Amino acid sequence: MSHILKKRTQKMGLPPGSLIHIGREPIESVHISLIEYDTTSCVSYDRVSVKTCIELLKKPTITWINVRGTHDAQIIAEFGKNLNLHPLMLEDIMNTGQRSKLDDYKSTIFIVLRMLKYSVNYKYMIEDEQISIILGDTFVISFTEDREELFQSVIDRLHVAGSGIRRRGADFLCYCLVDSIVDNYYYILERVDEQIDHLENEMSTGSSKIILQKIQNKKKEITGLKKAIWPLREVINRFLRSESDLVKNSTKAYVQDVYDHTIQIIDSIESFRDISASLLDIYMSTMSQRMNEVMKVLTIVSTLFVPLTFIASIYGMNFKNMPELETQNGYYVILTVMGCIATGMILYFKKKRWL
Amino acid sequence: MSHILKKRTQKMGLPPGSLIHIGREPIESVHISLIEYDTTSCVSYDRVSVKTCIELLKKPTITWINVRGTHDAQIIAEFGKNLNLHPLMLEDIMNTGQRSKLDDYKSTIFIVLRMLKYSVNYKYMIEDEQISIILGDTFVISFTEDREELFQSVIDRLHVAGSGIRRRGADFLCYCLVDSIVDNYYYILERVDEQIDHLENEMSTGSSKIILQKIQNKKKEITGLKKAIWPLREVINRFLRSESDLVKNSTKAYVQDVYDHTIQIIDSIESFRDISASLLDIYMSTMSQRMNEVMKVLTIVSTLFVPLTFIASIYGMNFKNMPELETQNGYYVILTVMGCIATGMILYFKKKRWL
Amino acid sequence: MSHILKKRTQKMGLPPGSLIHIGREPIESVHISLIEYDTTSCVSYDRVSVKTCIELLKKPTITWINVRGTHDAQIIAEFGKNLNLHPLMLEDIMNTGQRSKLDDYKSTIFIVLRMLKYSVNYKYMIEDEQISIILGDTFVISFTEDREELFQSVIDRLHVAGSGIRRRGADFLCYCLVDSIVDNYYYILERVDEQIDHLENEMSTGSSKIILQKIQNKKKEITGLKKAIWPLREVINRFLRSESDLVKNSTKAYVQDVYDHTIQIIDSIESFRDISASLLDIYMSTMSQRMNEVMKVLTIVSTLFVPLTFIASIYGMNFKNMPELETQNGYYVILTVMGCIATGMILYFKKKRWL
Amino acid sequence: MSHILKKRTQKMGLPPGSLIHIGREPIESVHISLIEYDTTSCVSYDRVSVKTCIELLKKPTITWINVRGTHDAQIIAEFGKNLNLHPLMLEDIMNTGQRSKLDDYKSTIFIVLRMLKYSVNYKYMIEDEQISIILGDTFVISFTEDREELFQSVIDRLHVAGSGIRRRGADFLCYCLVDSIVDNYYYILERVDEQIDHLENEMSTGSSKIILQKIQNKKKEITGLKKAIWPLREVINRFLRSESDLVKNSTKAYVQDVYDHTIQIIDSIESFRDISASLLDIYMSTMSQRMNEVMKVLTIVSTLFVPLTFIASIYGMNFKNMPELETQNGYYVILTVMGCIATGMILYFKKKRWL
Amino acid sequence: MSHILKKRTQKMGLPPGSLIHIGREPIESVHISLIEYDTTSCVSYDRVSVKTCIELLKKPTITWINVRGTHDAQIIAEFGKNLNLHPLMLEDIMNTGQRSKLDDYKSTIFIVLRMLKYSVNYKYMIEDEQISIILGDTFVISFTEDREELFQSVIDRLHVAGSGIRRRGADFLCYCLVDSIVDNYYYILERVDEQIDHLENEMSTGSSKIILQKIQNKKKEITGLKKAIWPLREVINRFLRSESDLVKNSTKAYVQDVYDHTIQIIDSIESFRDISASLLDIYMSTMSQRMNEVMKVLTIVSTLFVPLTFIASIYGMNFKNMPELETQNGYYVILTVMGCIATGMILYFKKKRWL
Repeated sequence: MSHILKKRTQKMGLPPGSLIHIGREPIESVHISLIEYDTTSCVSYDRVSVKTCIELLKKPTITWINVRGTHDAQIIAEFGKNLNLHPLMLEDIMNTGQRSKLDDYKSTIFIVLRMLKYSVNYKYMIEDEQISIILGDTFVISFTEDREELFQSVIDRLHVAGSGIRRRGADFLCYCLVDSIVDNYYYILERVDEQIDHLENEMSTGSSKIILQKIQNKKKEITGLKKAIWPLREVINRFLRSESDLVKNSTKAYVQDVYDHTIQIIDSIESFRDISASLLDIYMSTMSQRMNEVMKVLTIVSTLFVPLTFIASIYGMNFKNMPELETQNGYYVILTVMGCIATGMILYFKKKRWL
Repeated sequence: MSHILKKRTQKMGLPPGSLIHIGREPIESVHISLIEYDTTSCVSYDRVSVKTCIELLKKPTITWINVRGTHDAQIIAEFGKNLNLHPLMLEDIMNTGQRSKLDDYKSTIFIVLRMLKYSVNYKYMIEDEQISIILGDTFVISFTEDREELFQSVIDRLHVAGSGIRRRGADFLCYCLVDSIVDNYYYILERVDEQIDHLENEMSTGSSKIILQKIQNKKKEITGLKKAIWPLREVINRFLRSESDLVKNSTKAYVQDVYDHTIQIIDSIESFRDISASLLDIYMSTMSQRMNEVMKVLTIVSTLFVPLTFIASIYGMNFKNMPELETQNGYYVILTVMGCIATGMILYFKKKRWL
Repeated sequence: MSHILKKRTQKMGLPPGSLIHIGREPIESVHISLIEYDTTSCVSYDRVSVKTCIELLKKPTITWINVRGTHDAQIIAEFGKNLNLHPLMLEDIMNTGQRSKLDDYKSTIFIVLRMLKYSVNYKYMIEDEQISIILGDTFVISFTEDREELFQSVIDRLHVAGSGIRRRGADFLCYCLVDSIVDNYYYILERVDEQIDHLENEMSTGSSKIILQKIQNKKKEITGLKKAIWPLREVINRFLRSESDLVKNSTKAYVQDVYDHTIQIIDSIESFRDISASLLDIYMSTMSQRMNEVMKVLTIVSTLFVPLTFIASIYGMNFKNMPELETQNGYYVILTVMGCIATGMILYFKKKRWL
Repeated sequence: MSHILKKRTQKMGLPPGSLIHIGREPIESVHISLIEYDTTSCVSYDRVSVKTCIELLKKPTITWINVRGTHDAQIIAEFGKNLNLHPLMLEDIMNTGQRSKLDDYKSTIFIVLRMLKYSVNYKYMIEDEQISIILGDTFVISFTEDREELFQSVIDRLHVAGSGIRRRGADFLCYCLVDSIVDNYYYILERVDEQIDHLENEMSTGSSKIILQKIQNKKKEITGLKKAIWPLREVINRFLRSESDLVKNSTKAYVQDVYDHTIQIIDSIESFRDISASLLDIYMSTMSQRMNEVMKVLTIVSTLFVPLTFIASIYGMNFKNMPELETQNGYYVILTVMGCIATGMILYFKKKRWL
Repeated sequence: MSHILKKRTQKMGLPPGSLIHIGREPIESVHISLIEYDTTSCVSYDRVSVKTCIELLKKPTITWINVRGTHDAQIIAEFGKNLNLHPLMLEDIMNTGQRSKLDDYKSTIFIVLRMLKYSVNYKYMIEDEQISIILGDTFVISFTEDREELFQSVIDRLHVAGSGIRRRGADFLCYCLVDSIVDNYYYILERVDEQIDHLENEMSTGSSKIILQKIQNKKKEITGLKKAIWPLREVINRFLRSESDLVKNSTKAYVQDVYDHTIQIIDSIESFRDISASLLDIYMSTMSQRMNEVMKVLTIVSTLFVPLTFIASIYGMNFKNMPELETQNGYYVILTVMGCIATGMILYFKKKRWL
């Protein structure tokens, strides 16, 4: 989320549907796993080829193909050709800077979502990863950018015999994937909440140039979160209102639940925006208050001595005829006068509540 | 309302409908009370079991079950099984960080609202508690997080023979519960109104670092209030526009009344936001004005003496040949000159209105 | 308008439709007047009882009952019983903190509006008063909080034989009442406009702590005005789009006219908000500009003398061997040097445009 | 546009449709001109009476009556009686503080627009004038507040034989009038654009109290422009979507063109608002930057001399036993020390980049 | 994009449909090129006359006429006459300050878009150019303001035998042109993103008056971008929802893709606005923080020496009877006292964390 935009200009001038990977540099080869299940059985296949996938898809069981890595145009193209997917859908899978969206291509529903996670390399930096999900009548294909397994909890539930997910169709599996991505947003938001709290504490104790930086970064981060999560609302809503046969009514009650969560997350981001916007104000006023305090005391100190120094310099003049200088107690009288002036000024400052 | 989000991450990865309690740590056991009434009679039962509840529900009278405490998954599950409630509804009852909402499950209507109250432990801190209400054809089940009885006024009215509430159905009882929650918002808002007034008075008299803190807290509090109350509008509106048979038309006129109150409450919160937003501006300008005043007077004082001290230091020089020093009245002449300069400067400052 | 909310908490826990007066302490007894008119005649009755009203309502002429004072629950209840009014309508009449609204109760239309007026006791303070209007097929009943006659102009027009109002029905009378309330808003807005102008003039001439207070008060006042007037738009719109038989089409052209005025009033309030929001900015920048000017001149003055005083103090040192001190013209040379330095600095300041 | 509202209170309490002139004091008598044209001929009549107008209207040709001056109630009333116009329409024509609007009175369409122009007396001050247009089946009547001819270009085109306007109906003439008013907005906006540019240049060079005033005025002016132009969008849109027989479909393509212009104008006003809002920020930061620069240099200068003066004053003390004073080179050593300290401080300041 | 508005006043008073060129001064003659293609062949013609174009249009192949330069009214008029185009369409082509829009003239669809590019003369200055596209059943005519070829990539793809674009109709060609314009926005936005990043870095290191200028320019640029790109959303949406036979359903899936890009671009601009708005805040707080630091250290230094200088000036007084002056170690005692005071003050400052 360091940049608002992913470099897309390398695609300029290419025909639509061109399979060019836009995104992070891939470091590993693409990893395809497959789970095939129905109420009675659940079988996992790991590191399978696209060919195997296509064959297993022909079985009447429900099949979930999880493709980790989207940089291999050939694999994407093979899926496209065999499953008769629209070229723009394939392009969107590879071009990983998409906005969250749901496209209904009659025979399949295509969902793009953005998974948020903290960067492995830079602590506190939120990265986002594109998750593309294709929902068919008896299959779900998910594409993630990185090799990391994001859906472990769903896999675990699939292997529990008799679990709700086993008794339901591909649309319910799709809902589970979406739900686990949305659940993950809560994790991120809780972290952000803690960091804002931490920042407020830091602000009220010490003050450094770094805090200004941190506030600005937090604001940018929340702007980025908003941009990533905001479109989700419409995606889930379209899933909910979908008239496609692919989404059963029994599943929609669950999607409504995810929708409620999404609204709650968006509410929270708005609150974060409000709070982070006021952080800078608070910081500025704390700073200026502290500065003013310093300046006030210091100015008072120097003001106190200015008239006294003036009196002393009067009697430092070398005039021949200065009768006070000749008196026996002149020195002590002047010291007393100075003391009175100083006391008077301090009392005046106190009365005026400047001290 | 200290944190924007309730910890929800413990639920990550669990299947939907998992009954995990999310909320304050429960300190007491769950307390179930039941009131069964019709036009002619009204009987209260206290500390009943779920089993008894289910049996009493079979009677043709209207039954209100008030469950205080939502941390016992077994009790919630028992209700769910016996009354055939949707698993997501049960999950929402236990997961007490829900946004206010109304879900229409054909045979029942499920309402989640947020009760606001001042914290018992921390004065001035607003806490919110989730109230879940299930409206059936002849019953209402309400779930509150704490043991405290929130609906005493409704109970009292139920025991008055011939009162309007006794002559009407379960939907009217449901309206009464919602109404008493909304009425409670007025109480909170009046307190907030008083506190803002108090803050304004404090600001115009003294000034301390604590005021800055207080303003910030008040802003956060109002942001929190808005977040809690805003969804209410939609909930009541859906109640009002409900096409369910469970809500009679005669009740809707009353719901319209609650709706008007909700709009008024939201209006007030918007006004509070406006006012609290300007509080910081006012504070900052008051501060800078006061600071400027101090600085101005002090700077004037020191400026006044600088030229005079310069003159005195001239005649403090030890040059051999300084004719003025030898004159008889040099000292007095110089003192007079200094007096003139000082008077002149004061007059100039006065004319320029700097003093 | 000193407080955002009227105390409503005394109503907490009471059943809906409870006739509890919420509002200003009533100082006089309720005053009911009645005008009965048709194209040919117009008869006024003053200080009539509810009983008389009910009897006169049975005549085929159009009847306007004006009830001044809403604190007597018995009178309100009597009207309610005889005219078969909904309990919530009666509650709203007495509970004088309602938001402007229009409720269509089939046989009657119930309108609540807020009259704005300057406080008699505190100059410049805007108070608002609730006006409730019940429109029936041949009658209009209006309820005002205070004894003051607000509709004198309408009464006068009713007594003019052949005037438009005499030839039309109860709905036109109702429109006239609403129109006179909206017309009154123009009066208030013109006063606010003048006061803002006055404030701007004051700001550009002098400056006092009181101006800050005044700006803040003006902002609050405009926030209050917005809150009071904003709902009016919807009320008039619902009047306009009403499908009730009570509102004739010929009257709607006039209601459209009031609607246009309402939009214009809301536009003006938005402009006032913009202007009052920038008042504080302008005040702050004027203040800081003036302060900077003072500080600059004063700092320049003291800076001018610091190097000169330094030179003088050098020759005030008591070293044995300071050859300059022994020279004949050392003193004059040094004075000349000081003069040159001062002139140089002044020229430098002038060149840099700091002076 | 000096005041947000035109005085309207003189109308308070009058029945609707009262013909009271609200607006600028009229200085001349009303001037009515008439152009009667069809494809073959075009005849102008100047300074005609209402009677003549009514007679000429009976001819089958298209007639444009241009009434300059709206302060004569008798003339307006005469038109109203003869053409059977609604009393509220007549009231709106005379009451020249209307918001732009379009009312469809079946047999006629009534359009109110606001013409903007620079004041003749006060340079840079935008005045607005109400233009009322009545579109009938074969006639257009336009009312302008002032005697000035605003539609000269339309008149010129009417006199060109074979021009498009001559071949089309009254609705096209009406469109032409509206178009020439909207075109005029471009002129005003271009002037405002230039003035903002000018203001930015002024700000970057010098700075005066007047600039603050100018910025504030410009903001108010743009607020006023927005208020005047914003309703135009709806007016043109209603013209476009009008289902009246008075507006032909062929004309609507042209109205769409005006609509596009209106949107573009509103876009520009929004941009102006953005820019003018940031002007004050920029001014404030420029000011504070310049002030800081002055203060910094001056403070550095005085700080430089404070330690030096201290050293000098040490050796100005009159202690008997101060060995340094007796040495041969003490004076020179001290001068050297002072030089070193001054140089050191300057270097330190330079290093810290304060100088 | 230096000015918000293009000079349009030269058109005031002219009849609608007048072909007056508004825009940059043309420096070259109009250049017309033509590509005629179907699945089997693709032929290019360069520098053709309008006459040739019209003749080639009669062939059944798909024809793309690219007119570079819109300042020659005769050429535009010739196209208009031959293809029976609406006069307002021709006017819009020449009047190059149009807002992006799509007009459906039954037999043709007329699209106006704004191409953004960096100025050749002034680095970093974004210029915009109007692209007008006329889509007919078998032809597309595009008009660009400058001679520069903007659609080279589309031309290249057209010349590839068997490419998708060759197999589809004129609507797909039209989509390709729109797509290449939208793709170009990504390029601009990536540049703006980089520049904002660069600005943030510059701000955190040094500070100059120019940065203030740069921030302001960036804000204005983003305001300009928003104004240019915002209407695009509606244009593409109308293209998408078009019910014209000219746009085939198969093409609409591709238009949906452009629509998604447009939404993403608008999202990014909103983010840029947020970030650039906070840039000024950050700059101001960085500035004031740095200034405060300078002032603080300097004030502390001068405060430190004020009391010391006062003490020294006491003993510089010339009183006869000052016993301390006569003592043997008075001088050393006083120096020690001064040292202690200085140390004490420094420790106090350190404790208070002012140093």
